[in-house]
Amino acid sequence: MIDLDKPRHECGVFGAYTPGEQAARVTFFALHALQHRGQESAGICSSDGRTAHIHKAMGLVSNVFNEENLAPLKGELAIGHTRYSTTGGAHLRNAQPYLIETLHGPLGVAHNGNLINAPQLRRDLLQRGIGLTSSSDSEVMTLMLAGAPGETMEQRITACMRQWRGAYSIVVLTPRAIYAARDPWGFRPLVWGRLPAAHDGDGAGGLAVASESCALSTIGATHEGEVHQGEIVRLDASGFHRTQAVAPERGALCTFEHIYFARPDSIWDGHVIHHVRQQLGVQLARESHVDADVVCGVPDSATPAAMGYSRESGVPISEVLIKNRYIGRTFIQPSDRLRKSGVRLKFNVLAENVQGKRVILIDDSIVRGNTSGPLVKMVREAGAREIHLRITCPPIAHPCYMGVDMATHDELIAHRMSVAQMRAHIGCDTLAFLSMEGMMRAIGRAGGYCNACFTGRYPLPLEDIPDKQVFEGVFG
Amino acid sequence: MIDLDKPRHECGVFGAYTPGEQAARVTFFALHALQHRGQESAGICSSDGRTAHIHKAMGLVSNVFNEENLAPLKGELAIGHTRYSTTGGAHLRNAQPYLIETLHGPLGVAHNGNLINAPQLRRDLLQRGIGLTSSSDSEVMTLMLAGAPGETMEQRITACMRQWRGAYSIVVLTPRAIYAARDPWGFRPLVWGRLPAAHDGDGAGGLAVASESCALSTIGATHEGEVHQGEIVRLDASGFHRTQAVAPERGALCTFEHIYFARPDSIWDGHVIHHVRQQLGVQLARESHVDADVVCGVPDSATPAAMGYSRESGVPISEVLIKNRYIGRTFIQPSDRLRKSGVRLKFNVLAENVQGKRVILIDDSIVRGNTSGPLVKMVREAGAREIHLRITCPPIAHPCYMGVDMATHDELIAHRMSVAQMRAHIGCDTLAFLSMEGMMRAIGRAGGYCNACFTGRYPLPLEDIPDKQVFEGVFG
Amino acid sequence: MIDLDKPRHECGVFGAYTPGEQAARVTFFALHALQHRGQESAGICSSDGRTAHIHKAMGLVSNVFNEENLAPLKGELAIGHTRYSTTGGAHLRNAQPYLIETLHGPLGVAHNGNLINAPQLRRDLLQRGIGLTSSSDSEVMTLMLAGAPGETMEQRITACMRQWRGAYSIVVLTPRAIYAARDPWGFRPLVWGRLPAAHDGDGAGGLAVASESCALSTIGATHEGEVHQGEIVRLDASGFHRTQAVAPERGALCTFEHIYFARPDSIWDGHVIHHVRQQLGVQLARESHVDADVVCGVPDSATPAAMGYSRESGVPISEVLIKNRYIGRTFIQPSDRLRKSGVRLKFNVLAENVQGKRVILIDDSIVRGNTSGPLVKMVREAGAREIHLRITCPPIAHPCYMGVDMATHDELIAHRMSVAQMRAHIGCDTLAFLSMEGMMRAIGRAGGYCNACFTGRYPLPLEDIPDKQVFEGVFG
Amino acid sequence: MIDLDKPRHECGVFGAYTPGEQAARVTFFALHALQHRGQESAGICSSDGRTAHIHKAMGLVSNVFNEENLAPLKGELAIGHTRYSTTGGAHLRNAQPYLIETLHGPLGVAHNGNLINAPQLRRDLLQRGIGLTSSSDSEVMTLMLAGAPGETMEQRITACMRQWRGAYSIVVLTPRAIYAARDPWGFRPLVWGRLPAAHDGDGAGGLAVASESCALSTIGATHEGEVHQGEIVRLDASGFHRTQAVAPERGALCTFEHIYFARPDSIWDGHVIHHVRQQLGVQLARESHVDADVVCGVPDSATPAAMGYSRESGVPISEVLIKNRYIGRTFIQPSDRLRKSGVRLKFNVLAENVQGKRVILIDDSIVRGNTSGPLVKMVREAGAREIHLRITCPPIAHPCYMGVDMATHDELIAHRMSVAQMRAHIGCDTLAFLSMEGMMRAIGRAGGYCNACFTGRYPLPLEDIPDKQVFEGVFG
Repeated sequence: MIDLDKPRHECGVFGAYTPGEQAARVTFFALHALQHRGQESAGICSSDGRTAHIHKAMGLVSNVFNEENLAPLKGELAIGHTRYSTTGGAHLRNAQPYLIETLHGPLGVAHNGNLINAPQLRRDLLQRGIGLTSSSDSEVMTLMLAGAPGETMEQRITACMRQWRGAYSIVVLTPRAIYAARDPWGFRPLVWGRLPAAHDGDGAGGLAVASESCALSTIGATHEGEVHQGEIVRLDASGFHRTQAVAPERGALCTFEHIYFARPDSIWDGHVIHHVRQQLGVQLARESHVDADVVCGVPDSATPAAMGYSRESGVPISEVLIKNRYIGRTFIQPSDRLRKSGVRLKFNVLAENVQGKRVILIDDSIVRGNTSGPLVKMVREAGAREIHLRITCPPIAHPCYMGVDMATHDELIAHRMSVAQMRAHIGCDTLAFLSMEGMMRAIGRAGGYCNACFTGRYPLPLEDIPDKQVFEGVFG
Repeated sequence: MIDLDKPRHECGVFGAYTPGEQAARVTFFALHALQHRGQESAGICSSDGRTAHIHKAMGLVSNVFNEENLAPLKGELAIGHTRYSTTGGAHLRNAQPYLIETLHGPLGVAHNGNLINAPQLRRDLLQRGIGLTSSSDSEVMTLMLAGAPGETMEQRITACMRQWRGAYSIVVLTPRAIYAARDPWGFRPLVWGRLPAAHDGDGAGGLAVASESCALSTIGATHEGEVHQGEIVRLDASGFHRTQAVAPERGALCTFEHIYFARPDSIWDGHVIHHVRQQLGVQLARESHVDADVVCGVPDSATPAAMGYSRESGVPISEVLIKNRYIGRTFIQPSDRLRKSGVRLKFNVLAENVQGKRVILIDDSIVRGNTSGPLVKMVREAGAREIHLRITCPPIAHPCYMGVDMATHDELIAHRMSVAQMRAHIGCDTLAFLSMEGMMRAIGRAGGYCNACFTGRYPLPLEDIPDKQVFEGVFG
Repeated sequence: MIDLDKPRHECGVFGAYTPGEQAARVTFFALHALQHRGQESAGICSSDGRTAHIHKAMGLVSNVFNEENLAPLKGELAIGHTRYSTTGGAHLRNAQPYLIETLHGPLGVAHNGNLINAPQLRRDLLQRGIGLTSSSDSEVMTLMLAGAPGETMEQRITACMRQWRGAYSIVVLTPRAIYAARDPWGFRPLVWGRLPAAHDGDGAGGLAVASESCALSTIGATHEGEVHQGEIVRLDASGFHRTQAVAPERGALCTFEHIYFARPDSIWDGHVIHHVRQQLGVQLARESHVDADVVCGVPDSATPAAMGYSRESGVPISEVLIKNRYIGRTFIQPSDRLRKSGVRLKFNVLAENVQGKRVILIDDSIVRGNTSGPLVKMVREAGAREIHLRITCPPIAHPCYMGVDMATHDELIAHRMSVAQMRAHIGCDTLAFLSMEGMMRAIGRAGGYCNACFTGRYPLPLEDIPDKQVFEGVFG
Repeated sequence: MIDLDKPRHECGVFGAYTPGEQAARVTFFALHALQHRGQESAGICSSDGRTAHIHKAMGLVSNVFNEENLAPLKGELAIGHTRYSTTGGAHLRNAQPYLIETLHGPLGVAHNGNLINAPQLRRDLLQRGIGLTSSSDSEVMTLMLAGAPGETMEQRITACMRQWRGAYSIVVLTPRAIYAARDPWGFRPLVWGRLPAAHDGDGAGGLAVASESCALSTIGATHEGEVHQGEIVRLDASGFHRTQAVAPERGALCTFEHIYFARPDSIWDGHVIHHVRQQLGVQLARESHVDADVVCGVPDSATPAAMGYSRESGVPISEVLIKNRYIGRTFIQPSDRLRKSGVRLKFNVLAENVQGKRVILIDDSIVRGNTSGPLVKMVREAGAREIHLRITCPPIAHPCYMGVDMATHDELIAHRMSVAQMRAHIGCDTLAFLSMEGMMRAIGRAGGYCNACFTGRYPLPLEDIPDKQVFEGVFG
């Protein structure tokens, strides 16, 4: 009953220098806006210039923090993290930020992404006689930073970036500055902005970095731009500083940020995500239109695409699937009868909007293919005459090794089946996916994105794919 | 930061007879579909024919129940409840269902509504030497049922209904049957349906009653119709039985079920709520249209109205406010700067959809008037040229005494201000409310509804208004 | 592994009027001294003259209360309760005090004891149309008090006492006074004392009642005397008032308060419990002495008896069994090997004190007979040459119906076996029980005590024995 | 109200190889017998030959573990830990065992003691670029082991032992063996024993190491002897192996294990602790006897000494102070009146045993001197004519740097006052401490013990005293 047919979100990271304000408090509110990127655990780590403070726990941001545990996180520097488990299981030991004492004082790290050479880096650390407490590649990165050569933190981060291969948008806390860095491919988003002064007339405003711009606007910060590929930025009392640490590679931002991950009010690459999603619908209408009476999106992520489709095709849009906003995680098993009839916990149909009608149903993706069938069946039982399923991206036929938990090759339905087979499996009248070209046109770019899950052409060679089992095995 | 400017939901009730299935399990899934009616506490009470079982706790349905506490709730009869605190504070002692032992065996009660003569009924019980453990009128009803005269349960419920004045949709569990009753005014909804047989080919299907039809469709039940005003129904092994216990009064279903409370996929009075809400938008367009570039609804409840408005007026609809789906309750205070700039925890604006535009913003109601202002300010700061606020109901100028926690007279902005004053207070360019006639036309009825919060004309005399303070005082 | 071979404690009750102090705070500290009478749940209910306040929960006093939940329990009147489950299972709904609203204002009740006519009284309440939320006889008593006839609270309590048959020491909270009452047989202890003034030089001191005098001395109160059989006392601003509500019956204080229940520093009937327990050992030495090298008691309750035995017999006392002070409740199952070898969680032996020696081992009682055997085996394996088990009371051959959870007839080893059989079963060299006369001599009285568990002669006829199953069945 | 005038316990460690049994289960029961050595946190780490498993949490052993979290701790090898915070605050991050992945596979470590050169070792690790997650010296030891040179684990432990200066009894888990090591001074105890075969007739028995022998007897293991100073032992399928890793220094076992820490049934240096404590009382009677009517010990640790004193002096022993067995931690503040009168939460007096009498009161130590005064006052108010306080060790005038949280110089009353001043401060009639010679005679040894807290002569130079503040500062 839990929807498993989505690429799993990764993580959200945030960091801020907030003169005159408690940085951890600002971070708390910012993390709310990154909650969609991870609901498993949340954490904040702060520095008051001398001492570092941390609190992290399993659960939503609003459950993890209260005045009692937020108040001690003193100082004008803080980083925060929301986590969706990727590598590393659902254990508190995998919750972020990581905080360690190092030769250079306390070091806090929050990471979004996945290193494909983590196994090798891990072995290197072990060879150096360093022990690891978790299976997380973020701990590997933290311990590498602790021991990296260099006079300045920028130099030390640079030294690590030369070794890290894969996706990372990382935020780092030190006693007197926040650093943020993005991998040279730019797999994961990372933006920055300015905070108004805490007290009127006092000129000193703050600075913030975040996975998405929605976290900036939530706390009243401007959206100044992106942290560039291969770049390190520093936020401290002397302002905002950029360093091109390593040369940028050919751009490879994850297309799925646009398709599904990012919040619709976030801005990336100059475009509001919501607008891009509308355009995905427009492109679908251009590519695979079919005569119909009504078009609707599977809420919430496909709703903008349905709007775009409607606008382009003239087919009226309508709400058809009602989403239950209050579904929590449940492990209660339904009875046999309920299972057979399909417990409509997550979605219900507005029958009057589909009765006797030809319906275009728009969804954002098909991963394993186990939820589209029940949805189509539900709409058909409500009286739809025809159901035409349209997907706002191409078929996902290859796993992601850059931090998105798509599924394995064998689990991906598009790896096992043709579109025709999928159509039959799902039970819709027609099924069409958006073309790669159409998708990129909607995004507004010809290149600069990673589409490996559609094409199998990975932006960097995969000689050393991380095998989750290996590390999990050590910590049972 | 918590949105307080909505009429507060009341409660959801459910009851089922499920031959061949665990009724409590069916109830668990049904309660998910009634979660929007109350998130404070949840409970299920079941009967296995001889013994009654109960579990209830503070929190969401999915948090309150697990296999360990659900499994012992045995039997083919169960009732359930989701609660939003009305009278009686947020204490476990107010959680429902109530379960007591009586002369006639165990008796479970789940109630949605509010009795306006509860203080008098309470005094009567005390006079009879009966003690009360809570300030809830539902406990008063339960204890009255325990001691009511009559040979049959129907007779005993009827005896109580003759004394109860006000709003009640009540579900009652006895060892061998579920009963449900609705007040003669029909303030609160109550529907019933049939369940398919638990095992193929076995003719004996089940029966269910629920506050809304969405709970029926969630568990695969049909929607057969309403429990009528003043009616008692019985669900047991011999089928579905109706008794007109007291004569129906002039119909007074709460209009706000259509405006705001009910889930859009629920059906009432022959209409899908979603459709009614679209029609509210259509009526608004007819009554108070203004030239504009874009129309949008405050998500989620006003979205269908915006669709209707757009269709009727031709003004294109657009998403403008993005709602954060993951906001939990937090008691963390923002810093002064955050407070001033307005923490955008709940909503954010899609600036590109409003920049330089004339915006029609549709909301479902204005109660205290403290959230419309910040919303309008947010949209204006995003660049809107004009903002025209349209409300899908008339001004709320009078408190509700039938179980909806609207606010007191003094708190209601429409009690203190004219529309022009409200417009200035909120800061929009124009403000218009739907007329009573327009609203009823959208609902599709000329009468049969309670509109006392708009008109001040209460369906029954208020000589003995419950004063919450009295009972709360006794249990500090 | 949990020691089940003790008569189970009942409950502790406390009440106080504390001018100038928060009565609930005083009660909190007093309940610590009654913790040995019940560790399942704890609760406090207070009155500030107008409003009653309550907090109760499962667990130890120190876990149940914190500043946050204690502070709101305002007022100079409070009652408290520690509970060991007797009738009624381990549910929060059985936790005490009970607090209800009545015709005469809030009414709080804390009860220690057991009514043997509870089933009949329960039926009477149900016949009056009154519902019951639990299977506890204390709720029956509370609801009877709510509806009792009489102008004054004393009259209403008296009316109930005329109906209550069995054991009760009850403490009652009303808006302006604390009442306490004791059954006419005096089964359970109840004492009272005076508190010094809260502020120096201010003449108004307080008053307190408690199950045991140790609760009085813990909070700095004097021990003025007992609440007499059939008496009601009132504690309020006008002082301490006694009323002989019903005529005293032949005295029947539970002997086991002296043998095992009461804390050694409590005083009852003019004697410190510790002294009485020493005398039990003196009597044992007089009745059943055997030549030995060392005498020791099973800690902690039999240690004073061992001292008395040693003093009387001249056999040197020694510590032999070391008790683990940190054993909490565990449900972890030992492995087969551990089970066989006997996990020594609760006791261990000081081998050097028994090696090659003839040991007199003194215990306070044998109920089911399942722990004496392993203890004897442990001491023998440590090298004891002879083990002579001596018990500080006669064989327990009959169940208790007055609130002590002894066991059923079939479970009582002394009901099934002769002393010779028991000796063989336990594996000691000799086994002797104290005679009834010896026990009463140690207590210092010829009569006035209930010895029904030894003799089968119950102080009042048992025509209507409460059958726990009946009520538990209703609330599964 | 919480007794703070005791040297604080350190930690308990345990390790076992249990062929045919779940080692973690055996460890669970063994840890119960080490609960007195630490109640802050508990943890178990196991190995099934390939994977390591861990569970640790704040709280008592019985609260930390349940079947659900114990069952996954698979394998025939396990180590366990009970912790009393010494260096490092009360945070979960300081809970033990530590478990890390290393070049040689998973490594678990449980430690009792304190390294005085931890700051230097810490700096060395940081210099090597290794980050630390806590302020605990046990983490320092763990990370040193991870990177230590050597082919075998014995070699790696030996390499570390050459660097570790201070007190350590350490237990180490590797995939296929348990190791244990003890510092060359032997500050902390460490014993080992054999377990009978899990299945009858199967010759392969297990092996165990523990801080105290009571943990061995609890699980049915023999007590074979001590792990010697500077020794490493290995427990695995090939049996028990000893290695003299570093040369033993002059013996320096902590005298306080005998005085106060160890459980009375534990055996050390050939003597049962209980017997030693009796002898401490005998020596006191020889050194500082005074004419009196009764002698009593402050329960529980001074009770055996009172027995010895009585036996030697002929003054009858009596119980005077009753200890409340159910005192949990409470942060509730007493009212002013209660504070003045002294809330008798922990102890109460048996007045009849002291009225008009000359009392010799024996306690095990005076650290800060803040609890002896109230105890003496309580006994005097109960009617004692004279009170003679006798202490079973010399005055503690110097802090411990080997892991016992005695207090700082300034806090130690014996550092600030003469015995005469202390007597006046406490308010007893006479005060005497046992002499160093008397104490050692009771222990049965002339040397081999650390008495630095009495003499100020530390067994190893203190050039680099750990300053807790430094590390705590980094992790606020």
